Amino acid sequence: MPREITAYSNPLIKRVRSLRDKRHRRAEGLFLAEGLRILAEAEEAGTLPLMLFHARDSADHPIVRRLSAATEAAGGDVIQTVPDILHKLSGKENPQTVIGVYAERLTPLESIDRATAPIWIVAQSLRDPGNLGTILRTGDAVGAGGLILLDESADPFSVEAVRASMGALFTQAIAHAAWPDFIAWLRAGPGQLVGTSLNTDTDYQAPAYRAPVFILVGNESHGLPPAYEAACDLLVKMPMRGKADSLNAAAATAVMAYEVLNQQRRGAATI
Amino acid sequence: MPREITAYSNPLIKRVRSLRDKRHRRAEGLFLAEGLRILAEAEEAGTLPLMLFHARDSADHPIVRRLSAATEAAGGDVIQTVPDILHKLSGKENPQTVIGVYAERLTPLESIDRATAPIWIVAQSLRDPGNLGTILRTGDAVGAGGLILLDESADPFSVEAVRASMGALFTQAIAHAAWPDFIAWLRAGPGQLVGTSLNTDTDYQAPAYRAPVFILVGNESHGLPPAYEAACDLLVKMPMRGKADSLNAAAATAVMAYEVLNQQRRGAATI
Repeated sequence: MPREITAYSNPLIKRVRSLRDKRHRRAEGLFLAEGLRILAEAEEAGTLPLMLFHARDSADHPIVRRLSAATEAAGGDVIQTVPDILHKLSGKENPQTVIGVYAERLTPLESIDRATAPIWIVAQSLRDPGNLGTILRTGDAVGAGGLILLDESADPFSVEAVRASMGALFTQAIAHAAWPDFIAWLRAGPGQLVGTSLNTDTDYQAPAYRAPVFILVGNESHGLPPAYEAACDLLVKMPMRGKADSLNAAAATAVMAYEVLNQQRRGAATI
Repeated sequence: MPREITAYSNPLIKRVRSLRDKRHRRAEGLFLAEGLRILAEAEEAGTLPLMLFHARDSADHPIVRRLSAATEAAGGDVIQTVPDILHKLSGKENPQTVIGVYAERLTPLESIDRATAPIWIVAQSLRDPGNLGTILRTGDAVGAGGLILLDESADPFSVEAVRASMGALFTQAIAHAAWPDFIAWLRAGPGQLVGTSLNTDTDYQAPAYRAPVFILVGNESHGLPPAYEAACDLLVKMPMRGKADSLNAAAATAVMAYEVLNQQRRGAATI
């Protein structure tokens, strides 16, 4: 049977609310995901919440019912509550929402099997959690295996990143590494490191990409450091027809990732 | 000579601060843009602020000096102030920032000359101002003429949209229209209306696009309404290799816009 909590002052509500803060996420190893669509994607990817909060009124919703049963069967907690408390937990106005508490799941770099996917995305010092989540979503779409975050990075488990990922957080491996560790790991196996850069004349459609392709995108403001560019197998750039010299980092990643996928669809990438 | 304002209570500071709110922007017909890079892009595109705020300490920065001189020469106000007030105006921590107050500039649909660009982007009921700004930035990059916003839309002059556009707000025409007015205008001249949709089997790389191409993207949550899809010349979709069924709206726009640009670069689009 689901528990019921209707008091703001309940310590569990305070604890879950605190997961909106990075420090508490790190301390607990937990994060929040919100919304039926994302929780259903997580379930489909084989991940159930440790705690599931939903409004009493939505207990009969078929997806809520299925998620609740699966969560309880896996030993998790299902908590019925009131719209005001859901609003407090989620920061959103929609009282129909559901909220899941999940265990953070970073994959150690050495556990990544690069042979499992033809595309991997590598992002250096990404600052914006919305960009990070959007890149995860794009990675899922192109059949990438995961996202490797280099150096200081926005938190993939922040509410904004989880929301922007639209569930891809649960389908993509996520690793976090310092540059020296990443490049040592990369060079211990096959893999073409392709950096998007302004410091090249090579059009991004010119090379034949060879799987596994590691697409490397730089920080939103500064791009890639020179040493990182020097370590790439290829530097490429998108044509820029206007006044601006670059795309948004997540938009650039999508354009680049679809070029690699399109080559793979034409059978050109595995030559 | 620049004016100097150092008091929070100054009515001009309150008035400019209020432009962070949509109601005040609409009432005044003014909006805020922040940061040297965006203000310099605006200047390069021929647009100067009506008011320019900068910190006393940055008066000698060469770009600040140039912007100040140009603003004053055009009859605008240059106001030196203190980091605390700049922080209050911008919501950002960086006291080196500059802030410009600009006149809102929507282009009436009937004033758009579709022959001036091979690509136009049309977005229906876009909700997220960051997506809107990112789409403007992508439009600039692919040589689009502008962005036509359909129906209820996020505000292109919000601080988030201006920031995400990275100056493209000043290079792209921006129109706002109801659907019946848009479709009547579109059909009064040449133009291929291409909708991105989940309700089609046509791969986005299959058609030969013919300029001027109008790329139509739908609302982030709901996609395009059926009547809008029915009015398109083509519906296309990107391949989706993962669990998710769609890309972020700004990412999808970038992938689609670069496909059209790539066809144009190969000389295929003007057949």
